[in-house]
Amino acid sequence: MKISKDSIQAAADRIKPYIHKTPVLTNQSINELSGIEFYFKCENFQKIGAFKIRGGMNASLKLSPEQLAKGVATHSSGNHAQAMAFAGKLLGTKSYIVMPSTSPQVKVNAVKGYGAEVIMCEPNQQAREETLQNIVNKTGATFVHPYDNDDVIEGQATCVKELIEEVPNLDIVITPVGGGGLLSGTCLGAHFFKPSLQVFAGEPEGAADAVLSFKSGKVEKAPFVNTIADGLLTTLSERTLAIIKEHVTDIILVTEDEIKAALRLIYERMKIVVEPSCVVPFAAALKNPEIFKGKKVGIILTGGNVDLSKFGEWFAAPTH
Amino acid sequence: MKISKDSIQAAADRIKPYIHKTPVLTNQSINELSGIEFYFKCENFQKIGAFKIRGGMNASLKLSPEQLAKGVATHSSGNHAQAMAFAGKLLGTKSYIVMPSTSPQVKVNAVKGYGAEVIMCEPNQQAREETLQNIVNKTGATFVHPYDNDDVIEGQATCVKELIEEVPNLDIVITPVGGGGLLSGTCLGAHFFKPSLQVFAGEPEGAADAVLSFKSGKVEKAPFVNTIADGLLTTLSERTLAIIKEHVTDIILVTEDEIKAALRLIYERMKIVVEPSCVVPFAAALKNPEIFKGKKVGIILTGGNVDLSKFGEWFAAPTH
Repeated sequence: MKISKDSIQAAADRIKPYIHKTPVLTNQSINELSGIEFYFKCENFQKIGAFKIRGGMNASLKLSPEQLAKGVATHSSGNHAQAMAFAGKLLGTKSYIVMPSTSPQVKVNAVKGYGAEVIMCEPNQQAREETLQNIVNKTGATFVHPYDNDDVIEGQATCVKELIEEVPNLDIVITPVGGGGLLSGTCLGAHFFKPSLQVFAGEPEGAADAVLSFKSGKVEKAPFVNTIADGLLTTLSERTLAIIKEHVTDIILVTEDEIKAALRLIYERMKIVVEPSCVVPFAAALKNPEIFKGKKVGIILTGGNVDLSKFGEWFAAPTH
Repeated sequence: MKISKDSIQAAADRIKPYIHKTPVLTNQSINELSGIEFYFKCENFQKIGAFKIRGGMNASLKLSPEQLAKGVATHSSGNHAQAMAFAGKLLGTKSYIVMPSTSPQVKVNAVKGYGAEVIMCEPNQQAREETLQNIVNKTGATFVHPYDNDDVIEGQATCVKELIEEVPNLDIVITPVGGGGLLSGTCLGAHFFKPSLQVFAGEPEGAADAVLSFKSGKVEKAPFVNTIADGLLTTLSERTLAIIKEHVTDIILVTEDEIKAALRLIYERMKIVVEPSCVVPFAAALKNPEIFKGKKVGIILTGGNVDLSKFGEWFAAPTH
């Protein structure tokens, strides 16, 4: 493991000029109704609208001038694509983003808006990887994986570090888990900067690979996939699982109704726009008062890049 | 006119313990695409989710102990209802809120949640006023009008005062206009604390009473009413019109499509939840670059109490 307290501190210093120090918000009415003292780290207000800029920027800034001259590449239909495109723009290097042909046009436009070259591929894992490999072979660009990459994990670790600095007496932090980049970064950030801080994760029942992997100790697939938390569809890697196994207290599953109710609470009470993936840890806390009640609980609100046309579906019928 | 620089300062001091000092947000991408330097005063993050707590709290705090003992009363289906209910709760006095029978259940529940007594009436102006008068006769409660009240206007004036303190070199401020409480308060706040600050208002074409009144010089009705900006359906009073006539540079009309496009921009770029009424001044600025380009323009984002089930309608089809 090359990630250390010093390396996370160095990552924080490295990316500082390029990112926002996002606010930590609290909400009296949510605290009153839940009996939990929540601290929301608002990465929805981050550059590119998500925490992913931390890892993407850190990985890009660690490249040599020779590597940077050849560009960066990744495959992603989500926020990591925007992160790498934005990093490429800031650093004046070419970015190649492989996106599945099913990507919403708004996301493709956002990535192109940062000057990235978008390469479309069939919407399956094999096509993604082959297309990416072709790009890398042709251009010599450096592949920065969305989460199976130590520099990316190190960058994501800076988020909980900021949260700890702002709320030093935090008891627990909860993140969502998809591929595990943020969760493993959060584990390491907590381990090095506040070892007593407990780390939990929230995961949708409709993308329950991480909880299975956490229990069996090997990378598992989700039994079925069906969730509005579409940022959490990816699967852990050996790298992220190893860190998560060592440091995470538990991974808590939540239903779609619980996600929608939590989403509604955040929009109605906090007046902020967040992605459904964000509220999975919040929903996990709300459904387990026996664990979280009376505690100071940090929630990393991971991003706010929503497709507004989905609002009708998400908020169709009150669930509370 | 009993409202003065000293009285607005006193109002600010009076309500300070009970309200939030709301943040002023800026957004680089909105500034880049518009060529306008916007400063958004985020009253959607205010107590009760709207600026109305300023006027409601100021009026309530100015009552004598004898008046307070008999309670406060108002008619409103919107944020002023919540403001008076919340003020009543904080001050330990009874609040009586007359609401039309067509009020959304979520708003009725919010008002009741602050411990107010809600009295339903037929959804017309005569029924509102009669029902309110009955309550006042029976209880001796003090009626605090949503905007036709100097103490309320004085309280609303504290918002632009805070904005000026945070952005001293502001060129222009724009507010929405419904009954004119916020607009006339903003006029007086600007007049006393930064006389060079120009005041504009934005109004929906589908509720265009204020612009007609501003031009004719007497209180006019809207030619037709049809807008998603449902906080702006009320009509100016003689009191608010007099202030507006003296101090406002212009009232700018916007269409429903312009409101929706502006709403979409705020949600997508700023990741915050605001009411459609909020974005009317923002839409007014975007459509008139010849007036606002290159200027430092303050926008009071008045509130964030939205009915989430409306999202499907507001964001149905992209308008930009």
